Amino acid sequence: MRALYFDGTLQYRPDAPDPTPPPGEALIRTRLIGICNTDLEIVRGYLGFEGILGHEFVGVVARADDAPELVGQRVVGEINAYCGQCPTCRRGDPTHCPHRTTLGIYRRDGTMADYFTLPTNLLYPVPAAIPDEWAVFTEPLAAACEITDRVHVRPTDRVVVLGDGKLGLLVAQVLQLTGCDLLAVGRHPEKLAILERRGIRTQIAGEKIEPGADVVVEATGSPDGFAAARALVRPRGTLVLKSTFHGDVTLALSAVVVDEVTIVGSRCGPFSPALRLLEQQLVDVEPLIHEAFSLADGLTAFERAAAPGVLKVLLSTD
Amino acid sequence: MRALYFDGTLQYRPDAPDPTPPPGEALIRTRLIGICNTDLEIVRGYLGFEGILGHEFVGVVARADDAPELVGQRVVGEINAYCGQCPTCRRGDPTHCPHRTTLGIYRRDGTMADYFTLPTNLLYPVPAAIPDEWAVFTEPLAAACEITDRVHVRPTDRVVVLGDGKLGLLVAQVLQLTGCDLLAVGRHPEKLAILERRGIRTQIAGEKIEPGADVVVEATGSPDGFAAARALVRPRGTLVLKSTFHGDVTLALSAVVVDEVTIVGSRCGPFSPALRLLEQQLVDVEPLIHEAFSLADGLTAFERAAAPGVLKVLLSTD
Repeated sequence: MRALYFDGTLQYRPDAPDPTPPPGEALIRTRLIGICNTDLEIVRGYLGFEGILGHEFVGVVARADDAPELVGQRVVGEINAYCGQCPTCRRGDPTHCPHRTTLGIYRRDGTMADYFTLPTNLLYPVPAAIPDEWAVFTEPLAAACEITDRVHVRPTDRVVVLGDGKLGLLVAQVLQLTGCDLLAVGRHPEKLAILERRGIRTQIAGEKIEPGADVVVEATGSPDGFAAARALVRPRGTLVLKSTFHGDVTLALSAVVVDEVTIVGSRCGPFSPALRLLEQQLVDVEPLIHEAFSLADGLTAFERAAAPGVLKVLLSTD
Repeated sequence: MRALYFDGTLQYRPDAPDPTPPPGEALIRTRLIGICNTDLEIVRGYLGFEGILGHEFVGVVARADDAPELVGQRVVGEINAYCGQCPTCRRGDPTHCPHRTTLGIYRRDGTMADYFTLPTNLLYPVPAAIPDEWAVFTEPLAAACEITDRVHVRPTDRVVVLGDGKLGLLVAQVLQLTGCDLLAVGRHPEKLAILERRGIRTQIAGEKIEPGADVVVEATGSPDGFAAARALVRPRGTLVLKSTFHGDVTLALSAVVVDEVTIVGSRCGPFSPALRLLEQQLVDVEPLIHEAFSLADGLTAFERAAAPGVLKVLLSTD
């Protein structure tokens, strides 16, 4: 099969071996794959991963010995394969299972191939009303839903989202649905325009923002974003961290204590609400698509995805 | 009246002018005052305060034109005098009122004097069963109660308290009452022994601690404590910051996001539960008293309070 493989350098392999699903796992025929910032970080060598890249996908189940009812179904899937037995799994945090493998990120081949395997209990059938081009956004949209899953964002809250990258645009759309007083801040007028068209108030980074927000979401992917977010949150407010850039930030601890600020780290999220939001067209992912490439043109696609100002680049197995 | 005054240097003034309570405030005859780490920080020049020091107290109301029923009552009191009118006050966070004055800390003379004034709505009558020597701990005990007021500490949680100073010892006693699996860590065997006598498991800092705690409270007052606390908290766990030392710490932001850790700053707390815990003898503050001095010996008392290993030093107006 065709695959994009990374072992220090990114390679297109036209004749990678087909995977065989172990017990409990399904074989999935990939249809569309999204390139995520995490994929770009892996290619830059930050995460030490070796194998087939990719974790955002929509595909069709080709084989599932333990769950034959899934065969032929169009699916998306969670990316953390957990043990289900350890204390972390038992207390309901399987995405933090210390024994987990993560699709295309950690000890598990990913989705940038004609086929891959994933435990059947991680798969979600995609409603017919959701086209492939939307379904492939389920995973990052779930990450946006993780914010409201972990933090009670009230309709009376004033909320600021910093960052107009792919994740920031999804986060802003999800938070808009709470009815909160929302401001999205970014560096790219053309990206902010996607939110403006949905009635979300936006502002170019660097302009003055009124401080004292109840909730601030940091999704800039830059260390500067943290200081900006910290300065905007009110006493007893909540600062949500979504950026996973590498490097440290400086925290004035005493001020966090005096202001009694809550800082919440947030990453992978729940798939079912993301699928509901897509099916009910409460978020719009289509303007986030920059371009689609064939899997065989994967190296070009990665270059495009890494270029400044580019939103989502897709890979197709067609 | 006698007073301990700070204007860059700490002075004992035998003939400071008696204060006159403005409308809405009571005149309080001080009985006992506690010296807090914040007082020591002020004397080191960190907070830019000028005036009469002190915020921990028990006293008797000498005059209260707006609330005559308080006259003659023994009281403790909250330390933040708020406006009651601004958005912060109206949403229920008066301790963060941007117009607030803070007793002996910010734009308001404090309690290290024969008399001081405080708004009557900040005063709490002290039940007869609580002697002065316990009542004077109400304010720091309230700060310990703020943890369980802001964070849901479950009886099934594994909790680690770092720091065996005055606040750490109060925090450990309050958290013990949740029924949680508690470990208190400090540098002073004689202080940890206070907790051991109450059945709290303790450990000397530097010995190996099992990571993966559900809740970690950082009360060491040292920047090193932050890194230690961060390393102990489990994914999706909560790190409570109580230390208000000056200086920055370094935060590996990506790991906070990946582990979805929550960091909660916490300072002043609710007085009513603190008084209930004292009255019902569910915490024991008496072993925390190191020594009591007369107000006239205030300078010596401050030297003693700043010495290594010393717990609570009290000042008496007797």
